[in-house]
Amino acid sequence: MLRTRPVLKLVRWYSLPNKQSTLAKFKFPNATSTIQSITNDLPTYLNNQQLKVTLHGHMNRKPRIRPQLGFAFLRDSNGDEVQLLATPETTDGSVFSLMGKLLVEDSVSVTGYVQSKVQPKEQSTSSPVSDWELVIEDFQILNSSNSDASKLDKLKHSNPSELPPQYRYLQLRTPAYQNALRIRSKVAQLIRNVFIDNHDFVEIETPLLFKSTPEGAREFLVPTRSYNSFYALPQSPQQYKQILMSSGFTKYFQIAKCFRDEDLRSDRQPEFTQIDMEMSFINSSDQVGIVVEDLINSIWNKVGNKTTYTVNSEGYLQKIVHKQDKLQFSKLDYVTALTKYGIDKPDLRSNLSFTSLEKFFTAKENSEFPVLELCVLKQAFNPEHKYKLPKSFTDDISFKSRKPYVWPVKDDRIVTSWYTKLIDAGVIIPTESFNEEELVRTLNLQPGDIFAVSTRAEFPYENPTPLGRFRQLAMQEFPNKWHRPIVQPDGTLLEKYDFDDVIVGSWVVDFPLFNPKEVQSEDKYPRYDYTQFESTHHPFTMAKLEDYDLLSSEPLKVRGEHYDLVINGVEIGGGSRRIHDPELQTYIFKEILQITNYQALFGHLLKALSMGCPPHAGLALGFDRLCAMLIGSNTIRDVIAFPKNQSGVDPVVESPTGVSEKVLNEYFITTKQ
Amino acid sequence: MLRTRPVLKLVRWYSLPNKQSTLAKFKFPNATSTIQSITNDLPTYLNNQQLKVTLHGHMNRKPRIRPQLGFAFLRDSNGDEVQLLATPETTDGSVFSLMGKLLVEDSVSVTGYVQSKVQPKEQSTSSPVSDWELVIEDFQILNSSNSDASKLDKLKHSNPSELPPQYRYLQLRTPAYQNALRIRSKVAQLIRNVFIDNHDFVEIETPLLFKSTPEGAREFLVPTRSYNSFYALPQSPQQYKQILMSSGFTKYFQIAKCFRDEDLRSDRQPEFTQIDMEMSFINSSDQVGIVVEDLINSIWNKVGNKTTYTVNSEGYLQKIVHKQDKLQFSKLDYVTALTKYGIDKPDLRSNLSFTSLEKFFTAKENSEFPVLELCVLKQAFNPEHKYKLPKSFTDDISFKSRKPYVWPVKDDRIVTSWYTKLIDAGVIIPTESFNEEELVRTLNLQPGDIFAVSTRAEFPYENPTPLGRFRQLAMQEFPNKWHRPIVQPDGTLLEKYDFDDVIVGSWVVDFPLFNPKEVQSEDKYPRYDYTQFESTHHPFTMAKLEDYDLLSSEPLKVRGEHYDLVINGVEIGGGSRRIHDPELQTYIFKEILQITNYQALFGHLLKALSMGCPPHAGLALGFDRLCAMLIGSNTIRDVIAFPKNQSGVDPVVESPTGVSEKVLNEYFITTKQ
Repeated sequence: MLRTRPVLKLVRWYSLPNKQSTLAKFKFPNATSTIQSITNDLPTYLNNQQLKVTLHGHMNRKPRIRPQLGFAFLRDSNGDEVQLLATPETTDGSVFSLMGKLLVEDSVSVTGYVQSKVQPKEQSTSSPVSDWELVIEDFQILNSSNSDASKLDKLKHSNPSELPPQYRYLQLRTPAYQNALRIRSKVAQLIRNVFIDNHDFVEIETPLLFKSTPEGAREFLVPTRSYNSFYALPQSPQQYKQILMSSGFTKYFQIAKCFRDEDLRSDRQPEFTQIDMEMSFINSSDQVGIVVEDLINSIWNKVGNKTTYTVNSEGYLQKIVHKQDKLQFSKLDYVTALTKYGIDKPDLRSNLSFTSLEKFFTAKENSEFPVLELCVLKQAFNPEHKYKLPKSFTDDISFKSRKPYVWPVKDDRIVTSWYTKLIDAGVIIPTESFNEEELVRTLNLQPGDIFAVSTRAEFPYENPTPLGRFRQLAMQEFPNKWHRPIVQPDGTLLEKYDFDDVIVGSWVVDFPLFNPKEVQSEDKYPRYDYTQFESTHHPFTMAKLEDYDLLSSEPLKVRGEHYDLVINGVEIGGGSRRIHDPELQTYIFKEILQITNYQALFGHLLKALSMGCPPHAGLALGFDRLCAMLIGSNTIRDVIAFPKNQSGVDPVVESPTGVSEKVLNEYFITTKQ
Repeated sequence: MLRTRPVLKLVRWYSLPNKQSTLAKFKFPNATSTIQSITNDLPTYLNNQQLKVTLHGHMNRKPRIRPQLGFAFLRDSNGDEVQLLATPETTDGSVFSLMGKLLVEDSVSVTGYVQSKVQPKEQSTSSPVSDWELVIEDFQILNSSNSDASKLDKLKHSNPSELPPQYRYLQLRTPAYQNALRIRSKVAQLIRNVFIDNHDFVEIETPLLFKSTPEGAREFLVPTRSYNSFYALPQSPQQYKQILMSSGFTKYFQIAKCFRDEDLRSDRQPEFTQIDMEMSFINSSDQVGIVVEDLINSIWNKVGNKTTYTVNSEGYLQKIVHKQDKLQFSKLDYVTALTKYGIDKPDLRSNLSFTSLEKFFTAKENSEFPVLELCVLKQAFNPEHKYKLPKSFTDDISFKSRKPYVWPVKDDRIVTSWYTKLIDAGVIIPTESFNEEELVRTLNLQPGDIFAVSTRAEFPYENPTPLGRFRQLAMQEFPNKWHRPIVQPDGTLLEKYDFDDVIVGSWVVDFPLFNPKEVQSEDKYPRYDYTQFESTHHPFTMAKLEDYDLLSSEPLKVRGEHYDLVINGVEIGGGSRRIHDPELQTYIFKEILQITNYQALFGHLLKALSMGCPPHAGLALGFDRLCAMLIGSNTIRDVIAFPKNQSGVDPVVESPTGVSEKVLNEYFITTKQ
């Protein structure tokens, strides 16, 4: 029945389209109902031919029109589907013949009455179809689709995530994508209401035409119609929000667009959205954290319908009850995170942690990485059967640079042989306090265990460490093992639960304020220039007060007043107390970071600080990532209406594009190879 | 007492700032109270020296510290002010001496107890100061201000709008500016909650890195790291929101940043904020209007605390009662607006309207402007006294191009002499139906009246006409005259009211879909090329269905399905039903607007329409202007945290700036004179 129609771009229109058929697309009855509203009140409608209903929607699948019987399938804006029925007895001939022109994804208005489905479901379908049908009495095609929609129909039903990206609009019509963006909208509303209604914040829009301050990630430039004069798009509202703190606002937030012209690997977008906040007259970062915890708990409890947990003092997961006066998520310091879990954003749903073997061995491969450490996966396999390690534990895709040594304990021999091998290979040497019996007792390896061994620096900047990465892989390979137990209301421990049902939050604190600059390395180990310092987060972060003296003596030992919020192994946000003292800020720019042109870059901020700017602190949350986590997706593209691809191209509108020399002239620029 | 301090930029910091004084800025007690909270519960605090309170804030004015008595003035974040008192008896010597260092706008934390003011108010001040005072027991300077704040202090109190724009942060601390941005935040929250809670809309963020589609205003370009490859910042989310309508979303909104690289006269900003909405499966623009009226009424009733009115069928103002099923603001068609009020955004609080004198005269000065029309200001002055016309009625500043003829009726002679003068001057000639007696009766001019006469085209594109401009000036010069009466609940008419208390909304409809292109003109009249058509609003607007045939025969006679929302003479927003038929849209691009490269510019939109995109309509409101109206300001700069100046410069951060050749190379561009 399907007729092919001319593809738009091949046709040359020289005359006004037919009046009658065009205007018919603009004149149609209002919808009386949705599929859901009829289903909810079905007895009223069933087999009452006088009760006319009008539905609007799209053709969800290929209609089947035969001379004596026509079936079509309408999807309404809720994503529900209903079967439409036409027979020569019930449906006017003109309507019947119009149905012959239907294509998949045409938008339509249909009027008729509701009846029980006469035809048994003859078509297997994965999506839920109502068990009533609509008998068609009137019908209008409000806009025709093209043949691409028909060609893509199978994929649309089976795997919409695989639809070609230039057909994003078709993909967005499918229920999962509709849900993703609706959830995002709900979360944004909830966030704003929590900020404003619960905490008396003010939302303030800061400029997007900002100034080039080339620190950190690469910025997008915006030429102006003045010679050599450019705006830059902001990487965050950081500087403007600090200036707002000097402007008398004590509680600021914004759901803000930010821009980074970075390489777009690892699920990044050139423009992204940030929940940005700042508070003044703050003397403790906890005052910021309490507001953030209210947001996070509200979002997950009310929109995500999931329970939030913290790690309690005994190392168990305990349900959060939000309090307005006290932080609920536990605090984990940077060094503990790196030494116990090998990463600054550990997923605390897992109980796995590392043991240092410093007492027994010193690693020799690279003198900056002397600490040998070990992670054991207890009872990972049945030693009575043949066993092979998961491929991900050893392959190159899993580990970007260096890998740990991983062994399954098939029998007792490996309990001692692993380190003799490493000693023989010159990787490690025993320490003076080496004691084999104590080592074996400490490790307590049993057949069925898997263990991984690797090295790290005394103070790790490498992040994740090889074992940190191994721990992530172990959680993926063994989703049902080594869960951190949940303390239930009656005090008993629950060890079996679905990772996806549990939201564990944690603050990571006591980061080093500065890192040594990482330099090009020829081997698999990272290498650092310990004479050049970079801000671990940004140059506006305050030092921990107790480390103040170290700013002049040993800057690398200074810890920052920075705090990251980590949820289920994802760094969802970070913040800090800021430097509001212009003299100290100048010292950091000039003496520590050696920014010679700091006045040109940051003079505006120093000026704003120097007009009695009060103490302040704030935080930013990644809104896209938060929404992706909420819908259970691992890519932020699923919660962005029109994402760019990895080349920075918007496949729907086909941007970016070339621009005429005439336009460039107005901006006093020209292209240059 | 004030000591001058070194200006920051003159000092070279080589050592870490003093530990004790720096850390003191970060350690301070929490605020226990605000000035308001103490005032609200004053009896509890008064003269109870055991009840200690801590306040945070800024020094609102110059402290007066003498050896035996110290006064300072704290402004807290609510903008309230309190006097701080120190005497050698009540206040420790170290605190007392610290107060000697205080400068205007220092941020401080102060602890003490509340007492009735012992000192009679010796300082005259315009702002309200509490009639209690705080006796200082402890005191910390949390950050020092610089001498600029002191120099600017007088201006800060007398006229903060005149503070130099680079000190925007100082300006924003003053109560009126604090209020402006807090109101803006409240309005944004209200808008979102009305859209989502009352009407089930979804807020969706559309990309800001868009594509160059050089139609309409000039766009900002964003170079990429590919040769001759640019994004453009969007002038509005128009195209993306139409693509969203093809993506299954039936009710979209967004409070969206938009960008126009225009000349910045007439209170425009290169980046501005728009309340953007679109609805699909819409068969009448009223469905959009009803949602918008709910927004507008909610905003003015709940945040603005003002009553909204419509013009009823008798021409009176009638209070709005919002209904979910029917438009409440009256509709005014474009031609009536131009012929009665001389502008497409008439301020309907005024009763003034125009009389056509076509029957009596034909204007001869310019054959395209043959219609003579008149506006009378009845009883504008007392004819028994000497009278001179307001300067604005005749000066060059008021009228951009041509001016009307304006006369005061001092005595009866002018009633007939005015047109004989114009006839003698060759400006007009009498028509065949000219009848002096009928003319005099029609005009009914009386001593004390002022009347203005000018010409217009049969179908006016000139907007405002000279009389339209005259009407605006008359409202300014005579704010207490010719008010449109308000129908009160008891049916009586109220003719005396304050213009500022009354919000009158109106829809303006039936705009021409296309304008003839305006060309350079050598005289004061605008000139048009009637063979070249431009979209009056944008090329995506649908024609009125009854004018469909005219699209091929007489495009200039086609009226659009466009609707503007006008409030108190300000065009606050506009919208339309869109063309969802790709063939008709192509016809408009190609045959009417003669856009030869329409596929390159708009092919993405045509493709999205051609996949069964449903009928849709929408609207955008200017959020900045709306907020400015709400706070009673006539400049949007008052409701934007960091506005650009008329040169596009942000005076706070001093953007835009030059960029190094190295960075430009990465973007394959170079500067060119």
